[in-house]
Amino acid sequence: MNTTLRGPSGMTKHNLADTIALLARTPAALDAFLRDLPAAWTLGNEGEGTWNVSEVIAHLNHCERSDWITRAKIILQFGEARTFDPLDRAGHAREVQGKTLAQLLDEFARLRSANLDELRTQNLHPGQLELRGSHPAFGVVTLSELLAAWAVHDLTHLHQISRIMAHQYREAVGPWSAYLGVLHCNGSSS
Amino acid sequence: MNTTLRGPSGMTKHNLADTIALLARTPAALDAFLRDLPAAWTLGNEGEGTWNVSEVIAHLNHCERSDWITRAKIILQFGEARTFDPLDRAGHAREVQGKTLAQLLDEFARLRSANLDELRTQNLHPGQLELRGSHPAFGVVTLSELLAAWAVHDLTHLHQISRIMAHQYREAVGPWSAYLGVLHCNGSSS
Repeated sequence: MNTTLRGPSGMTKHNLADTIALLARTPAALDAFLRDLPAAWTLGNEGEGTWNVSEVIAHLNHCERSDWITRAKIILQFGEARTFDPLDRAGHAREVQGKTLAQLLDEFARLRSANLDELRTQNLHPGQLELRGSHPAFGVVTLSELLAAWAVHDLTHLHQISRIMAHQYREAVGPWSAYLGVLHCNGSSS
Repeated sequence: MNTTLRGPSGMTKHNLADTIALLARTPAALDAFLRDLPAAWTLGNEGEGTWNVSEVIAHLNHCERSDWITRAKIILQFGEARTFDPLDRAGHAREVQGKTLAQLLDEFARLRSANLDELRTQNLHPGQLELRGSHPAFGVVTLSELLAAWAVHDLTHLHQISRIMAHQYREAVGPWSAYLGVLHCNGSSS
């Protein structure tokens, strides 16, 4: 029996417990997949101006420090009265400097765990999820949308990591490339 | 220092140790991400005729039984003389029946581990990777291409899983959908 609430088109509405369940698992999943993986998978990017796997994890760490929980607290404290600071899209460049992938993964696990502790401590009730904030590009957003986007942001970067890694074997797979959807993905990764 | 061999366009050539390193990690990564995840993430698909997360894992299990290692052994035993059997694209339907996601994940870990043991036992030398086989759709393929495709097939389905899960929150993220690449992916998933 599926009692999950559905939105107008049959898709799932935001549910805080579901969001936290996903956010809590991402660090362990990335760790299991990436730690000690050969450099052939983790050093390559998708070409000029694109990120390698370490840079993606550094971006996630930057967002743990500056984006999601920071903005959630701005909504709870100031509502629409204080527009979020724009996110520094080059923040990953500072985060990655001098760090191994293993260190970046450790940091991601630590930051995420602390941020989820902070979110749980807020003990949000359903009414608070409808509180509104002010996004520098989108205008009015809700806390619910922000938290849902935090989870889908993890999925966007898992999606990107699988695409970056697949790119390293683009030629090696020969004719199989026709059947391998990840080699035909044009989803942007920001 | 990156001493990885590069193909003509700068991308990585197939390397058996790299392939095995990736293939060995996928079950634990999927387990860490998916086990006990709320049904809102794992029961939903992307619409009529598409797969949910359990069906993807069932497909991976079907391929562990019938595709990659089976075909590698056909190449090693018969070369081009014996064309591979076509893969049953509905094989996942039998694999998924009556099983929980946790059972499917356990099965994936067990099948993959046994198949990698079998691959390592072959103790393939570089010359053998150039052995040729006959694919029912592509014609001549090499063992190297087959093994590289096995790894990228994992990445294709990790990519697909992240896209399926993101789809469940397509509406919940509100205006953030503009920034979330996984919601704009058109990569096919077969």
